[in-house]
Amino acid sequence: MAREPSVYEERIENVRKELKRQGGKALILPPGDDQFYLAGNPELQIQPRHTFFVLPSDGDPFLFMSSNNERNIRELTPIEDIVIWDDDDDPVEALMDALSSLGLTSEDTVFIDEQMWALFVDDLHKILDAEIELADDIVMQQRIQKDQYEIDAIERACEIVDEVSEEIRGLDAVGMTENELVAEIQYRMQEKGGDSGLASFPVAVASGPNGAKPSYYPARDLGRREIRPNEPVVLDFGASVNGYLSDQARVVVYEGEPPEPFKEAYEVVLEAQQAAVEAIEPGVVASEIDEVARSIIEDAGYGEQFLHVTGHGVGLGVHEPPFLMSGQYIGEGNAIELQPGMVVTVEPAIYSDDWGIRIEDDVLVEEGGSRRLTDSDHGWKSLD
Amino acid sequence: MAREPSVYEERIENVRKELKRQGGKALILPPGDDQFYLAGNPELQIQPRHTFFVLPSDGDPFLFMSSNNERNIRELTPIEDIVIWDDDDDPVEALMDALSSLGLTSEDTVFIDEQMWALFVDDLHKILDAEIELADDIVMQQRIQKDQYEIDAIERACEIVDEVSEEIRGLDAVGMTENELVAEIQYRMQEKGGDSGLASFPVAVASGPNGAKPSYYPARDLGRREIRPNEPVVLDFGASVNGYLSDQARVVVYEGEPPEPFKEAYEVVLEAQQAAVEAIEPGVVASEIDEVARSIIEDAGYGEQFLHVTGHGVGLGVHEPPFLMSGQYIGEGNAIELQPGMVVTVEPAIYSDDWGIRIEDDVLVEEGGSRRLTDSDHGWKSLD
Repeated sequence: MAREPSVYEERIENVRKELKRQGGKALILPPGDDQFYLAGNPELQIQPRHTFFVLPSDGDPFLFMSSNNERNIRELTPIEDIVIWDDDDDPVEALMDALSSLGLTSEDTVFIDEQMWALFVDDLHKILDAEIELADDIVMQQRIQKDQYEIDAIERACEIVDEVSEEIRGLDAVGMTENELVAEIQYRMQEKGGDSGLASFPVAVASGPNGAKPSYYPARDLGRREIRPNEPVVLDFGASVNGYLSDQARVVVYEGEPPEPFKEAYEVVLEAQQAAVEAIEPGVVASEIDEVARSIIEDAGYGEQFLHVTGHGVGLGVHEPPFLMSGQYIGEGNAIELQPGMVVTVEPAIYSDDWGIRIEDDVLVEEGGSRRLTDSDHGWKSLD
Repeated sequence: MAREPSVYEERIENVRKELKRQGGKALILPPGDDQFYLAGNPELQIQPRHTFFVLPSDGDPFLFMSSNNERNIRELTPIEDIVIWDDDDDPVEALMDALSSLGLTSEDTVFIDEQMWALFVDDLHKILDAEIELADDIVMQQRIQKDQYEIDAIERACEIVDEVSEEIRGLDAVGMTENELVAEIQYRMQEKGGDSGLASFPVAVASGPNGAKPSYYPARDLGRREIRPNEPVVLDFGASVNGYLSDQARVVVYEGEPPEPFKEAYEVVLEAQQAAVEAIEPGVVASEIDEVARSIIEDAGYGEQFLHVTGHGVGLGVHEPPFLMSGQYIGEGNAIELQPGMVVTVEPAIYSDDWGIRIEDDVLVEEGGSRRLTDSDHGWKSLD
């Protein structure tokens, strides 16, 4: 397994404590970041197969999975109790049997992961009398502050992104499609020791007007657009190392000169990003970082063109607390005080109708301050 | 948009008909295969952002999404009515407003996608009085038979996989890690025109004992194992073209001679696969294909080592009906009669404790028969 058993034991006991505090009788997690964090299972939920980690508030945790998956997991997990169902079994009946040991009644509450598929939520409603509620921050409270192993992995993921970022800036990319550039980025990240792809998040190569779309990434039938001279290309991607992510964005003009308004706005984003990064230290409330970046962009007259929030936490997941988020997330997210061991992105942006500017780095909160973990060339010029 | 508006209109009307037949007042879909199929939105659900396609049994369908996502979608979707929420809005309140137009009561039933996140299911329960049920096959009934555009895309995805498969067989792979081989496979698929990665499924490179695990793929902290002489490597991957997938598996020994028991079992899997492919034609019930492959493997004495089902449908999703599945899927899946336009995989397998053999091709059901769409070298010898 990836870590010593004691690491998992401590995490499980901390989560159990929080589970009890919130009045839950059990926590039920599908494959995903939380299950990897607590039980070492690296799998993803990519098919409708019943795989769960079950942590009771009292008693031993167990994994529930098909015999085929059990083969994959046995040597990776610290969890000794693995309840297996076979292809000949009805997994829902097998799950009912497994969960009956919890002795749940309609008075009890069970917490589930917010990304659990509706299919499995439906099965749990059929099986259990108990209230089923979203787990929200039960595991995330632990995950938000990273230990040294986790910081090392994130730092390595940041180094990989820095190296690839500089290489990609040096390509003769005019005439390449967005998809071709995505392929180059993915290949180089894995060549340098990054994890295989799908546990991460989509590489965004957003050329010209596609850069004006804040959450554009090539998927399915997108990505055929060729990169042209004089146009900014937003490159937003992260590596994964032992499951831990980095996340960086740069904007590159591969040939010629971008429009004047782009150049002017670029300096504003650079300044806002620098100021926000410098403001990060323990004790600062997350929303203040957003305000630092936003006020600079607003004062320069671009407030309406900064279409999203200044950043997010990063770790096993690409969007973790402490969210530096406005709107829907203000209530909870922005009240979080930054603490040593948290890793956040800082990514102010300005979008026009024809191009986008988003400059993003990862920052580690440390005792007495913070440290920028990604730091490749921040300009828009290519290296041709 | 990828297809003519009339294609989407016809699909929507067919799905609406089925929705009414099943007594549903509305169908609510998150980003994913069904939303791409009906509304042309290529995005994936990669963050907790409220994005839905809503199809009422009477009245016009609409998309519900953040203003940031709307920028991405406007030119891709045939859906004219896009309800937008801003970062300053509470998306749950905005959704409640949007859904109020449906006039739903506690007597009504709303169908949702089985992969919708628990978070959103929870929101819908808070907003709606109506019964919320899994949509199951409401859209899949349409998707199961592919039209010519879809078949063309799958055929191209199969050609790409064939080409990459032959190239990968020719690599000097001993000493490479599984992750390095994954990187080569991904890069080559995209270089030949495949879609950018994450909409597809994880590339599986399973060397030696990892091949003995039927659903092994390198993710997170896996994939560091180096490929050795004399050991079989299972290579299971698919390309994506305009969102449509292929899925192929081969086993290659990169240097030296594999164990004798492997060679003997290999011939059995080859024979079982050939027989199952030949049995595919319109009118055959899916379970019969499984029986053809399984009986050959059982008769040769390997029945206990064929750990999964013979195949599955493939299209926008990598595991679609008509499932040729045993166990949990027997009831529904296996009763489906094969029809022209269906695409299925055929992937019998034999697993020992030290290696695995899984040979998989994609097959198109046609009038009067069927056609193998992937057909790269089926042997275990490398090209060194």
